[in-house]
Amino acid sequence: MTRIRHLVSIDDLSLGEIRELFQHAKRFGEDLRSWSELCRGQISASLFFEPSTRTRLSFESAMQRLGGGVLTAAEMKSSSAAKGESLADTVRVVSGAYADLIVLRHPSEGAARLAAEYSLVPVVNAGDGSHEHPTQTLCDLYSLWIERGRIEGLDVVLAGDLLYSRTIHSFIYALARFGANIVCVPHRGFELPEYVLRRLREEYGAEPVRADASELGDIAQESDAVYMTPNKPHQLSLFTDSRGFRVDRVDAVYMTRPQTERYRVEGEEEGRYMQLGANEMAVGPLREAVLMHPLPRRDEISADLDDDPRSIYFKQAARGVPIRMTILAHLLGRLELSAEPPVSDARRFAVPPGSNPCPNSTCVSHTEQRHLRLSFKLTSRAPLRAACGYCSQEIPIGLVGCSTTRHFHPRDSATARKIRPDHLIFFRDEAQATALGYSAATR
Amino acid sequence: MTRIRHLVSIDDLSLGEIRELFQHAKRFGEDLRSWSELCRGQISASLFFEPSTRTRLSFESAMQRLGGGVLTAAEMKSSSAAKGESLADTVRVVSGAYADLIVLRHPSEGAARLAAEYSLVPVVNAGDGSHEHPTQTLCDLYSLWIERGRIEGLDVVLAGDLLYSRTIHSFIYALARFGANIVCVPHRGFELPEYVLRRLREEYGAEPVRADASELGDIAQESDAVYMTPNKPHQLSLFTDSRGFRVDRVDAVYMTRPQTERYRVEGEEEGRYMQLGANEMAVGPLREAVLMHPLPRRDEISADLDDDPRSIYFKQAARGVPIRMTILAHLLGRLELSAEPPVSDARRFAVPPGSNPCPNSTCVSHTEQRHLRLSFKLTSRAPLRAACGYCSQEIPIGLVGCSTTRHFHPRDSATARKIRPDHLIFFRDEAQATALGYSAATR
Amino acid sequence: MTRIRHLVSIDDLSLGEIRELFQHAKRFGEDLRSWSELCRGQISASLFFEPSTRTRLSFESAMQRLGGGVLTAAEMKSSSAAKGESLADTVRVVSGAYADLIVLRHPSEGAARLAAEYSLVPVVNAGDGSHEHPTQTLCDLYSLWIERGRIEGLDVVLAGDLLYSRTIHSFIYALARFGANIVCVPHRGFELPEYVLRRLREEYGAEPVRADASELGDIAQESDAVYMTPNKPHQLSLFTDSRGFRVDRVDAVYMTRPQTERYRVEGEEEGRYMQLGANEMAVGPLREAVLMHPLPRRDEISADLDDDPRSIYFKQAARGVPIRMTILAHLLGRLELSAEPPVSDARRFAVPPGSNPCPNSTCVSHTEQRHLRLSFKLTSRAPLRAACGYCSQEIPIGLVGCSTTRHFHPRDSATARKIRPDHLIFFRDEAQATALGYSAATR
Repeated sequence: MTRIRHLVSIDDLSLGEIRELFQHAKRFGEDLRSWSELCRGQISASLFFEPSTRTRLSFESAMQRLGGGVLTAAEMKSSSAAKGESLADTVRVVSGAYADLIVLRHPSEGAARLAAEYSLVPVVNAGDGSHEHPTQTLCDLYSLWIERGRIEGLDVVLAGDLLYSRTIHSFIYALARFGANIVCVPHRGFELPEYVLRRLREEYGAEPVRADASELGDIAQESDAVYMTPNKPHQLSLFTDSRGFRVDRVDAVYMTRPQTERYRVEGEEEGRYMQLGANEMAVGPLREAVLMHPLPRRDEISADLDDDPRSIYFKQAARGVPIRMTILAHLLGRLELSAEPPVSDARRFAVPPGSNPCPNSTCVSHTEQRHLRLSFKLTSRAPLRAACGYCSQEIPIGLVGCSTTRHFHPRDSATARKIRPDHLIFFRDEAQATALGYSAATR
Repeated sequence: MTRIRHLVSIDDLSLGEIRELFQHAKRFGEDLRSWSELCRGQISASLFFEPSTRTRLSFESAMQRLGGGVLTAAEMKSSSAAKGESLADTVRVVSGAYADLIVLRHPSEGAARLAAEYSLVPVVNAGDGSHEHPTQTLCDLYSLWIERGRIEGLDVVLAGDLLYSRTIHSFIYALARFGANIVCVPHRGFELPEYVLRRLREEYGAEPVRADASELGDIAQESDAVYMTPNKPHQLSLFTDSRGFRVDRVDAVYMTRPQTERYRVEGEEEGRYMQLGANEMAVGPLREAVLMHPLPRRDEISADLDDDPRSIYFKQAARGVPIRMTILAHLLGRLELSAEPPVSDARRFAVPPGSNPCPNSTCVSHTEQRHLRLSFKLTSRAPLRAACGYCSQEIPIGLVGCSTTRHFHPRDSATARKIRPDHLIFFRDEAQATALGYSAATR
Repeated sequence: MTRIRHLVSIDDLSLGEIRELFQHAKRFGEDLRSWSELCRGQISASLFFEPSTRTRLSFESAMQRLGGGVLTAAEMKSSSAAKGESLADTVRVVSGAYADLIVLRHPSEGAARLAAEYSLVPVVNAGDGSHEHPTQTLCDLYSLWIERGRIEGLDVVLAGDLLYSRTIHSFIYALARFGANIVCVPHRGFELPEYVLRRLREEYGAEPVRADASELGDIAQESDAVYMTPNKPHQLSLFTDSRGFRVDRVDAVYMTRPQTERYRVEGEEEGRYMQLGANEMAVGPLREAVLMHPLPRRDEISADLDDDPRSIYFKQAARGVPIRMTILAHLLGRLELSAEPPVSDARRFAVPPGSNPCPNSTCVSHTEQRHLRLSFKLTSRAPLRAACGYCSQEIPIGLVGCSTTRHFHPRDSATARKIRPDHLIFFRDEAQATALGYSAATR
């Protein structure tokens, strides 16, 4: 039996596969109504543990345009979950005979990975908390590729709230992976967080440099711009003078909405968030830039841009249907790709019994009580760094234990570095290590 | 490109088109299960901003009987709308690639027109507040046509709450348009409102006369009956003596439910509303009358009539499926009509910037904050009368301004009458006119 | 016209029909994706008056795998029902043209029978309060039949809460009907209720005897086991000594979840409910027993059994799809059965006007105000016993009246026994009889 493939993270697809999917999506998009035999007889189930009408309708449209059937559970909370059923059991039942593919939306980070571990059919992550939403990212990349014919080497401005938005973080990693140049123009106080910058540096070799974005006009006036070129850390310095890299031509502006619930500052009035209008888009470097937005928008893009040919945000949303058609058809075995799949992540290890080291309280490893298979990913050996196998958040490591010797060691000690990964256990502090029956290593 | 056709109001269809739709509906209804190839590959989206299970299921049944797919958003409020997205944006996204037709239900009057302005695919109004619900009206007319073979010249009794019911008002206009004679037998205190009577008079030449409905028995005992013959204002007087026109033979009785939330009077007990039973239907003039009701009913029709062959209210509901099939197939381009479409409403003009003159607080022009294209319809030049372009409610006009001269004038002045419609602006009073920068006309 | 068939109770199917359905289900289950032409053009409507996502999805999957369409009303309460429409009217409308079959879930016992009385299309009971859920029972029986090749003569252990669970009661009756031997191992205090035992005795000749279940180990330690062999009341005594019938080999264990809301005893802590794990299943008599559960489970089956080949609870849930496919295809006229249908229940009589004798306050005869056709089933003449025609609950009989003589009599009098069933009327006491205009029989 071939292994079931899932789409939990965009990293479950290789660059080659993504490029092939784009070609197929283009073909599908030419006449959406002519593919209704491709998945005839197949059924997808939308299991939505939090409402997201737009995402759900996009997937359900894609499945129906492929001729497949759809089962809808738009508000899963109200039903069996309320009777205390574990996510693992729900997934095992639905994947048993009800559906041939599961589209899962869940408020907890890592939920889609947990589901994939137990499902008998492919699982597509339609958003797991603030973790991943890979088809949204694919849709954004695809829209850029359709407009520009390529992604590598494009100069893409990311504007607005770069701190909290899951969408923007996933998109930035994907841009870096495809070799696009990234210009961050954050709303003041909403800069890209340090852990995103570190991953960009460590995984994609993208070193941020100061950028002179004064030619971008109002978009950039409120904050310090930053420029990153992945995989070419040294080349960039050639273009940089004391004012920073000069941004004078942009291929795309990706605008984000404020995460309102986090944005409102007490005592301050609302509405200071940046707003793009015809004036802001009139500056030279943006003359040929397409304007993107993940939608829904509120006021951050004015209506006076809606009919501007550079505004592609509605097209971008529409393109979610053909790109999701390719994902569904591929995972259902009705669309073969010739590119190699990605090399599987070999650095994943089981967490020894004891305690869950994940610090993220909304991670599925904490919100689900049963049927968990705790694991961690070893992201770096020196310094020792690890991430939760479900939600990818970094595990705070105070001390390091070895599950065979039952000793603990300082995190950066030579001994800690030599422990086999499948024997590693992480402690916040000595109290926790002792409580779990570990003792200090004898000299 | 041909213009997209919508069904926002029943006036979007010509009489000839409606007659043709009835012929097709009859054909569809003969075997509902044999049309499943007609719209194969097409998708309709039910966007319901307030719940209405019956209407939604009727549309979704019609679409599936045509072989099409259905996307369901039965409770739109809970999702993206809650994130503050405008109706216009929602419609632009859904009509981009998700669906080939939108069925919209919305609590605000005029919402369907707003949606139609932005949609890339046909919009069908499945009820916008207390404004219009054209497929319900078509269903009622169709049921009458199926039972009697024609509509023109029929004598139709409308009984019950004629004051608040949207259904009844739309049905009355449609009966008048088709040339049926209307007998109003309202529950006391729930007479037809003045603006409906005026429209019947002005648009259809239907002058109400006193009617002697004593032969109708209990149905008519509580109130003064009124009789109207459209388009023949003078002919009627021939039949009328001092007791009024004598109602002695009826083709159909259309019973309405009380709009309970408005009906309960403080301090009074419930349940005085009229009730039709076998006894009430036993009088001579009703011997061959069919009994209709838009459903759901409560107690206004007794169960003892359910098996009476004249009771067609359940058939009437069932006929909603074939009639909706014709609408969907037609708007999706799979059912050609040979009749001419109606002449488009040329009396619609943009409201100049300033303030929204619509007095209806639940009109979409007030409930939606963004992406509005305010307009008014000029319903009469002398006296000057205008209606909101979204909700059709009459605009209260105190003073009239000209947007080029920036002067205001008395409503009924000769100058006011000469202002070009596209320069007209309406003010409640002088204070408002002045606040908007208009001044009194110099003599 | 042939009479419409419904599936309100599992007794609506004969044993022969059920055996044939199992054969078809097996055929369907071999490749679920190859039957998509069988019900093309047909539509089922899920009318759920209380949420039950799992059941709904199972039915909707079955219908779509047959190529049919689905209408979903997952939360019926919020809509027309809230406007006060009777269930009968809702069913008449939906069955008029919207759907070709209705799947009904309702919180009131007897709701499915009421629906069937008014529906123009087949009604499938998907759970009516704590009354019946016939497709769940069929699914359980089918799973047993698939695993063992037969049902007759199997030894089936029923463990846990045998007091409150509708699922378990229906399953026990069905096992008795098929001639399986039943071993009850209740959680202490949650023994099978007396009325279930009586029905087993009276309808299936199953006399409970004490059982020695000590070889079953922990499962049986908390309570007194009971053994029943249907239709062989005398044979059993041969095997019984003073310790009771010895249980030393079991074909299946059917575990139930605690009905938590009823289970929590004030002042006591939660979690004492029995839990099956690898240890409990390791005893000799269970070596070849399959482990079943209706799901969702909480902690009553440990995860360490999930990969045990005897654990078939996930397969059991999956088999709900093919078995429901057979029911839908059969009722829609697309799957002919050669076995005779059951003899219809001739002992059903109309309740004379007056008062509703059903004592069950959640019976649909009490929760629905309109369009009821009250009836009773005469379950025994001596002693006189009757059950509600909707919810099947026993009617408390104080006195017995005759609707022609208008006299009442003591329940067990010779006169009472001679009243014709269609003249019978039941009174709680003399006060009620007198209030309804009945008088004591003259001597």
